[in-house]
Amino acid sequence: MKRVYNFSAGPSMMPEPVLQRAAAEMLDYQGSGQSVMEMSHRSKIYEGIIHSAESLLREVMNIPENYKVLFLQGGASSQFAMVPMNLMTKNNKADFVLTGQWATKAYKEAARYGTANVVASSKDKTFSYIPDLNPETFSKDADYFHICMNNTIYGTKYHTLPETGNVPLVADISSCVLSEPIDVSKFALLYAGAQKNMAPAGLTVVIIREDMIGHAMEITPTMFNYKTHADNDSMFNTPPCYSIYMCMLVLDWLKNTIGGLEEMKKINEKKAGILYNFLDNSKLFRGTVVPKDRSLMNIPFVTGNEELDAKFVKEAGERDFVNIKGHRSVGGMRASIYNAMPVEGVEKLVDFMAEFEKKNG
Amino acid sequence: MKRVYNFSAGPSMMPEPVLQRAAAEMLDYQGSGQSVMEMSHRSKIYEGIIHSAESLLREVMNIPENYKVLFLQGGASSQFAMVPMNLMTKNNKADFVLTGQWATKAYKEAARYGTANVVASSKDKTFSYIPDLNPETFSKDADYFHICMNNTIYGTKYHTLPETGNVPLVADISSCVLSEPIDVSKFALLYAGAQKNMAPAGLTVVIIREDMIGHAMEITPTMFNYKTHADNDSMFNTPPCYSIYMCMLVLDWLKNTIGGLEEMKKINEKKAGILYNFLDNSKLFRGTVVPKDRSLMNIPFVTGNEELDAKFVKEAGERDFVNIKGHRSVGGMRASIYNAMPVEGVEKLVDFMAEFEKKNG
Ligand SMILES: Cc1ncc(COP(=O)(O)O)c(C=O)c1O
Ligand SMILES: Cc1ncc(COP(=O)(O)O)c(C=O)c1O
Ligand SMILES: [Mg+2]
Ligand SMILES: [Mg+2]
Ligand SMILES: [Mg+2]
Ligand SMILES: [Mg+2]
Repeated sequence: MKRVYNFSAGPSMMPEPVLQRAAAEMLDYQGSGQSVMEMSHRSKIYEGIIHSAESLLREVMNIPENYKVLFLQGGASSQFAMVPMNLMTKNNKADFVLTGQWATKAYKEAARYGTANVVASSKDKTFSYIPDLNPETFSKDADYFHICMNNTIYGTKYHTLPETGNVPLVADISSCVLSEPIDVSKFALLYAGAQKNMAPAGLTVVIIREDMIGHAMEITPTMFNYKTHADNDSMFNTPPCYSIYMCMLVLDWLKNTIGGLEEMKKINEKKAGILYNFLDNSKLFRGTVVPKDRSLMNIPFVTGNEELDAKFVKEAGERDFVNIKGHRSVGGMRASIYNAMPVEGVEKLVDFMAEFEKKNG
Repeated sequence: MKRVYNFSAGPSMMPEPVLQRAAAEMLDYQGSGQSVMEMSHRSKIYEGIIHSAESLLREVMNIPENYKVLFLQGGASSQFAMVPMNLMTKNNKADFVLTGQWATKAYKEAARYGTANVVASSKDKTFSYIPDLNPETFSKDADYFHICMNNTIYGTKYHTLPETGNVPLVADISSCVLSEPIDVSKFALLYAGAQKNMAPAGLTVVIIREDMIGHAMEITPTMFNYKTHADNDSMFNTPPCYSIYMCMLVLDWLKNTIGGLEEMKKINEKKAGILYNFLDNSKLFRGTVVPKDRSLMNIPFVTGNEELDAKFVKEAGERDFVNIKGHRSVGGMRASIYNAMPVEGVEKLVDFMAEFEKKNG
């Protein structure tokens, strides 16, 4: 069996022991005589799985009691509409910081449902930094303030949160969820497509403070109303059962093999450190992001020469470093090094980069 | 390894060879060094999977060229809003037949977005039949006419389609999709939650005639607009990649092991025949549905004595016939015998029922 180092921005690598367990349990989950894929979502055995996924997530992320955890479908892209439909309902207004493509999509979708203010943007420099934010420029009467915490395409991350005072803070954490501890109590709502650090694609996790629930616009589809799912423990209709099971396995690995988010953070800092350190010392390669705003998860870099970039991507692929091509809007390369990427994968990548630099530098 | 006979209404049994292949490919799909769960949805290798799933579905269901196949998320429940938001846009009116809980939910959600007419209902007799339909009672100016083709909870099925003339016919085929051939050209839109006959939960398949696309209401979330997904070959955002892969494996099994939908129908008729025949001859058990409207997939039955029903369900469970309890709104038992239920499973169930009847009849 061959395994590659997969630097995809998502879907992305899963921890190997998790895949092994899933394979072993595929035809018979713990003596039930059923695959998890075959279980009635209303059965006792499946209820055990979804409850365990939720309680592991609550424990690992230290989620306060007054927050609901919702296991939904539709991707983070559905949240771009669900958030305004549910939250933009007092003054029909919200604030946005444009730090990349996903932040911009969230803003544009919200603008279809109310007044969406852009308080800052880093578009002027291809989103290579997080703008400085001045709370005086924030709307005092906004129903919420939206950020994209980690910008998957551009490789930036908020290292400090905006001071929004009484205005509820909402964050897309799709590409940084579970990568390090986060103070959930600072947010009114967090959402994440699961396909980077949590589970296979097809699951969207929403962590929502209870007072944010129950104020949806009249036009909100029943399935887009957080209350529908909160009132039914994510079982209003058939949930994405298998992805939730995989999420449980990942959380179990994170808690029991890794040792929790503090430990995960150390490993992620080590991995990112190896690559950033190489980039900072390389004469051929350089990172594209302002150092203070660098992401732990997504690391874009370039040689400055498009042909050389293409050559690097091609040769990397031949060495089984896959999906390392940068997003078309940035060019160059991007190494997404989510939780499941082993330290060894980054070390080997850096070795290969050094070798490539020697030959082509 | 133990395997039970699982009569769940969905999620439900998967073909065993499909599960075996999924387990075998879990860590390395065809020498790629990746699990399908780990693949970038934009990668060549994953594109091969989603294209193959679509072309197999087109072939097996004989879907005409002028229909799009969409692989979505959100369950059939999301279609209850998506259909009116996209289709109820000329005269803001649609017709509904109430044949069960799902048909009624589709109607109630549509009524939030326009004029929803009930043309007939079988609620008077616990939805145990499909009402006779008189085309003269249909709205001539309806934007569509909605039916639930197979009623999962009550065990009824349309054996003839309503004559809607120029009014587009829309059907929820969640619990009968792929069970027998269907003339797609009679419908403007078909939708199905995949978790019965297609794939694990988390995938919703929509088959839509092209002229139905592009007329959504202004308020429609981008992710609820069929055009979004049709224009992007179901890749506007991250699709439920693994469920689509499982769907491909199921379709491959259906085409190459079973031999297509005509063959599948014969097997399903055989299975249902064994059970209906037993019920019709039993002095203890009886089916709850009017014979002419019986479903091939979901077969509810009762003894007429609640205590005896409960005893049967309990003893069946001990013999590894699981999830055979009826829906609370009907009571008694329900055997859902989807494509993956082997003939042997039904034969053994009937043997057990005969044994139970001898002891308790
Ligand atoms: C930060 C962020 N938000 C949103 C999305 C969109 O997620 P989905 O494809 O699940 O809709 C992505 C996808 O990569 C992302 O990285
Ligand atoms: C006929 C029918 N329609 C709709 C649904 C709801 O599907 P979902 O749970 O995918 O939303 C079901 C679920 O069993 C069903 O049987
Ligand atoms: Mg981005
Ligand atoms: Mg450098
Ligand atoms: Mg029903
Ligand atoms: Mg009888």
